[in-house]
Amino acid sequence: MPDVQGEEMRSSFILTRVGIEGVKRPVIIRRPGREVTLVPTFDISVDLPAEQKGSHMSRHVEVIHRAVDHAVRDENDSLEKLVERVARDLLRSHEYAAYADVKLSADYFLQKESPDGRNVTENYRIFARAKVRKDDEIPWRAIGVEVSGMSACPCAMENVRVLLKRELREKDIDEERLKILDMIPVPTHNQKNRTFLEIGMAGPMDIEADELISLIESNLSSPTYEILKRKGEAELVLEAHRKPKFVEDVVRDIIDGFLDRYRNLPDEAVLHVKSVSEESIHKHDAFAERISDLGELRDKTRYMKV
Amino acid sequence: MPDVQGEEMRSSFILTRVGIEGVKRPVIIRRPGREVTLVPTFDISVDLPAEQKGSHMSRHVEVIHRAVDHAVRDENDSLEKLVERVARDLLRSHEYAAYADVKLSADYFLQKESPDGRNVTENYRIFARAKVRKDDEIPWRAIGVEVSGMSACPCAMENVRVLLKRELREKDIDEERLKILDMIPVPTHNQKNRTFLEIGMAGPMDIEADELISLIESNLSSPTYEILKRKGEAELVLEAHRKPKFVEDVVRDIIDGFLDRYRNLPDEAVLHVKSVSEESIHKHDAFAERISDLGELRDKTRYMKV
Amino acid sequence: MPDVQGEEMRSSFILTRVGIEGVKRPVIIRRPGREVTLVPTFDISVDLPAEQKGSHMSRHVEVIHRAVDHAVRDENDSLEKLVERVARDLLRSHEYAAYADVKLSADYFLQKESPDGRNVTENYRIFARAKVRKDDEIPWRAIGVEVSGMSACPCAMENVRVLLKRELREKDIDEERLKILDMIPVPTHNQKNRTFLEIGMAGPMDIEADELISLIESNLSSPTYEILKRKGEAELVLEAHRKPKFVEDVVRDIIDGFLDRYRNLPDEAVLHVKSVSEESIHKHDAFAERISDLGELRDKTRYMKV
Amino acid sequence: MPDVQGEEMRSSFILTRVGIEGVKRPVIIRRPGREVTLVPTFDISVDLPAEQKGSHMSRHVEVIHRAVDHAVRDENDSLEKLVERVARDLLRSHEYAAYADVKLSADYFLQKESPDGRNVTENYRIFARAKVRKDDEIPWRAIGVEVSGMSACPCAMENVRVLLKRELREKDIDEERLKILDMIPVPTHNQKNRTFLEIGMAGPMDIEADELISLIESNLSSPTYEILKRKGEAELVLEAHRKPKFVEDVVRDIIDGFLDRYRNLPDEAVLHVKSVSEESIHKHDAFAERISDLGELRDKTRYMKV
Repeated sequence: MPDVQGEEMRSSFILTRVGIEGVKRPVIIRRPGREVTLVPTFDISVDLPAEQKGSHMSRHVEVIHRAVDHAVRDENDSLEKLVERVARDLLRSHEYAAYADVKLSADYFLQKESPDGRNVTENYRIFARAKVRKDDEIPWRAIGVEVSGMSACPCAMENVRVLLKRELREKDIDEERLKILDMIPVPTHNQKNRTFLEIGMAGPMDIEADELISLIESNLSSPTYEILKRKGEAELVLEAHRKPKFVEDVVRDIIDGFLDRYRNLPDEAVLHVKSVSEESIHKHDAFAERISDLGELRDKTRYMKV
Repeated sequence: MPDVQGEEMRSSFILTRVGIEGVKRPVIIRRPGREVTLVPTFDISVDLPAEQKGSHMSRHVEVIHRAVDHAVRDENDSLEKLVERVARDLLRSHEYAAYADVKLSADYFLQKESPDGRNVTENYRIFARAKVRKDDEIPWRAIGVEVSGMSACPCAMENVRVLLKRELREKDIDEERLKILDMIPVPTHNQKNRTFLEIGMAGPMDIEADELISLIESNLSSPTYEILKRKGEAELVLEAHRKPKFVEDVVRDIIDGFLDRYRNLPDEAVLHVKSVSEESIHKHDAFAERISDLGELRDKTRYMKV
Repeated sequence: MPDVQGEEMRSSFILTRVGIEGVKRPVIIRRPGREVTLVPTFDISVDLPAEQKGSHMSRHVEVIHRAVDHAVRDENDSLEKLVERVARDLLRSHEYAAYADVKLSADYFLQKESPDGRNVTENYRIFARAKVRKDDEIPWRAIGVEVSGMSACPCAMENVRVLLKRELREKDIDEERLKILDMIPVPTHNQKNRTFLEIGMAGPMDIEADELISLIESNLSSPTYEILKRKGEAELVLEAHRKPKFVEDVVRDIIDGFLDRYRNLPDEAVLHVKSVSEESIHKHDAFAERISDLGELRDKTRYMKV
Repeated sequence: MPDVQGEEMRSSFILTRVGIEGVKRPVIIRRPGREVTLVPTFDISVDLPAEQKGSHMSRHVEVIHRAVDHAVRDENDSLEKLVERVARDLLRSHEYAAYADVKLSADYFLQKESPDGRNVTENYRIFARAKVRKDDEIPWRAIGVEVSGMSACPCAMENVRVLLKRELREKDIDEERLKILDMIPVPTHNQKNRTFLEIGMAGPMDIEADELISLIESNLSSPTYEILKRKGEAELVLEAHRKPKFVEDVVRDIIDGFLDRYRNLPDEAVLHVKSVSEESIHKHDAFAERISDLGELRDKTRYMKV
């Protein structure tokens, strides 16, 4: 059969990426002690030199099939290794390519204990990416998570406190009794917050997605839980109101926690943190974001903390 | 050219709907005093008798073009009249059809005054539908809106109050001073709430979308605004916390308000109300919904209020 | 802790549905010979009587947790039994409810053999629903699938044939040689087609999702495959062009095949078939749809086939 | 009222972007001879220095309101000027910010003439972005479009031709008559293709979105039209089959056409072209993409064309 893709081109342009998007395939990741089935969506590509007409698209899906079959047979696997293996196989099977880029995203679940002591299954998103160059020993890999939690606004809380005191004074409540308002959290707007964190670098990277999830959850106003009985719900609301945070605070505190936890990562590693609050008082969302290498972040803290 | 769609079928099935989905077209609606440009998405269809192979699909889009051009020329128009006109024209242009069904949805904007007296533009969704039968003088029409606002949970608020009192008692705050906690709203979880209302009936219907939006906004814990300065924000938070509501309350209060406002609508008119709270303490959404004709709702209220 | 949901209402409205939307949970379905892990999204609800203020929302998620845990322990399970079990448990745990409604949808995968003899994993959507009434022994259940395949337009093909002959005649090709154009399929527009089929009924229903998928695939112009080498791809294109179909044809042929395959289903069972072609020559999509009980469809065929 | 955002921070991190997402506002663009109403979605942000706790979020929406009101009053406007004006105003109103980033996307419509001479309204997406630095006179701006059209696969067509000849030979059709198969396009898979083009650069840029749309449409296998009668449809199918293209070809030919058309743009301008084919024979999509500055593209062509 004619191989039109393989035709030589007289004059053309390099293409940065040629590949397929939106391929879903169930994958089993075997960790010590448990086995996780994920249903990731893959976006994979290679580059295309100027003198080649087309990429052999069917090979892209074949590589995914091989990688997934391989993952099912092997133990001690991880998503980062899976995307790296797909990227390396892409380079082998597209002999004209110099570069392969593989991304996946999937729903991810963890067993957690709720504030009132119940076992609940919580839902997250997980991301992995590998970029491999033919002439380069060291692949670039990234792992990321998206966590839904709660943010409570510190500004509205202080202004509500002022309004409440004003109202109570008008009802002739004396200042002594008003002091109670400084001892308790007062109402503010709170809402669903989605926070994304991704860390990427060349070379081996020993980072657990579950730790990244914990890092985000501990730096929101509070995590959320799928099951909360009345007491647990009230305690969670109080926890969030005792840790009110702007999206700006969420991003900064996560960066701070990340630098503290992962001191051994190289300065060249790139951290991306984005937090989105689905504002309960507006129709739009508010967000804060930082993309930076760790070197810049570390200098900054050192400088600032002096 | 061969007319394959027009071929006669020896034995086949009636089709309930044959048409096109996802057609976008800008439309100008001329109201007294203002002109509104909307960009609706249309889903339109006719039925197909058993003996006809195919529907002439190109006529569907032609009808939309004609209706939109017509709408641009005419004054005093409305979305309900637009969908009805499209449905009638579909029946005329598909001579084999007995039934036409036309739906549209669009972003919709209103100028509002914020709590701190600013002019703001607020964003809603608007819906319209017409179903017309060839042998039927009276078309069925519906109009609907979706409004984003705020819901604050009444249950968590009461339980937070109990917890706060317990904590303050442990700090030896006396009962007299604790009474302040019964005079003020205390923290609860609040969140974005999306509420949908649609009313449909045969025959003329004189209902303004803007009124339906107001009806929903006045029955949420509070409306939301695109711009809020510090004082307005704090006042809105307090308003919502003084009117805490379950999604169940939102739906019931809207039904109550609707029956009160639209006493002249026939018992056969069908009301659909659905409210979804994007729970700030959970990863999932909570919802409540009622679909019913007004007769049933009116009987129920009469019965219940006795 | 105060139970605000449990408060009695003096006068209110019944709610058709109160529940939660968008809960994702991994589920293992054990079939003889294989084990399938799915990640369904659940929408579940109960009704709410007029005299009860709120539904106990946390119980909804607890029921899903219990049902999923149960599913993991049991053998020979199915999605229809899973949704029924969730619905029955909802009724037990919401003692005030008379009705429970449970829906799920999930990505679903099958191993198939491609035209050139390769094993490929193909991606589908699967749907299940159960509605259970407290005073009713027989639950209503539904199962559905969505299949992506290929539709090729029969009308454009005939008109292209006319144009091609006209062009060749102008080049003085004689009629004898033009006859070749009647022996081969000529170009037409073809595209991704998404077809949905759902069958619902009261009482036990022994229908395999895999059979419904086959039924749809065999009634499209052709199925699609994730991996196709050059020869397989060309054969598939020819297969689709030898079976050109309108969306109307797809829906009717599926109904015909369904009635033929499932002769024992009761007349009261309701069949819903919808086919959407993502038209390659337009920016919009074309669709055809039939919703009907089998009795009506059977009468119609009998009548029509006489 | 307390200004919590304005509080000074002792030690923190710079934030790359703090702002709001998903704000929709109708906008009127006045061009010579016509007035276009768009309903864009805005994502806007400023950076945040390390010593400032929070961004004043309400000012973001105020700036959009002012810019939109201004746009309504002014003539000869453009989307690029609108986003630049919003970005400049953001910098003025957030005195602590050094950088503002404004993006919008909107549905966009053009009147076109269909192959059979009808006036049709076609639907596109339009994009604009401005990035402005406080200490920099020259803003960076970008304009982009997304166009839906048709791609027909050149590889499958050649392989179908081979198969058809083989079949006809088996039916004893002589070689002389088989030559007709080399005179006509034979079937291949074709599908909806979505192609995105964006050009960005510092300094003034005189590029019409309508020209970018034409550039894409002329480099697809064919454009698509919302209304096609039988003859027009057949002609369009033939046009696409006479210009079969891989996604790779689409991207390369658009780059070629762009370099040819916009010779005066500086080497530093960055071009991003991505084409996605919603493969009719697969469940996934295929894509090709190039991101590059014009200098690199120009060198490459020069080199290649020697």
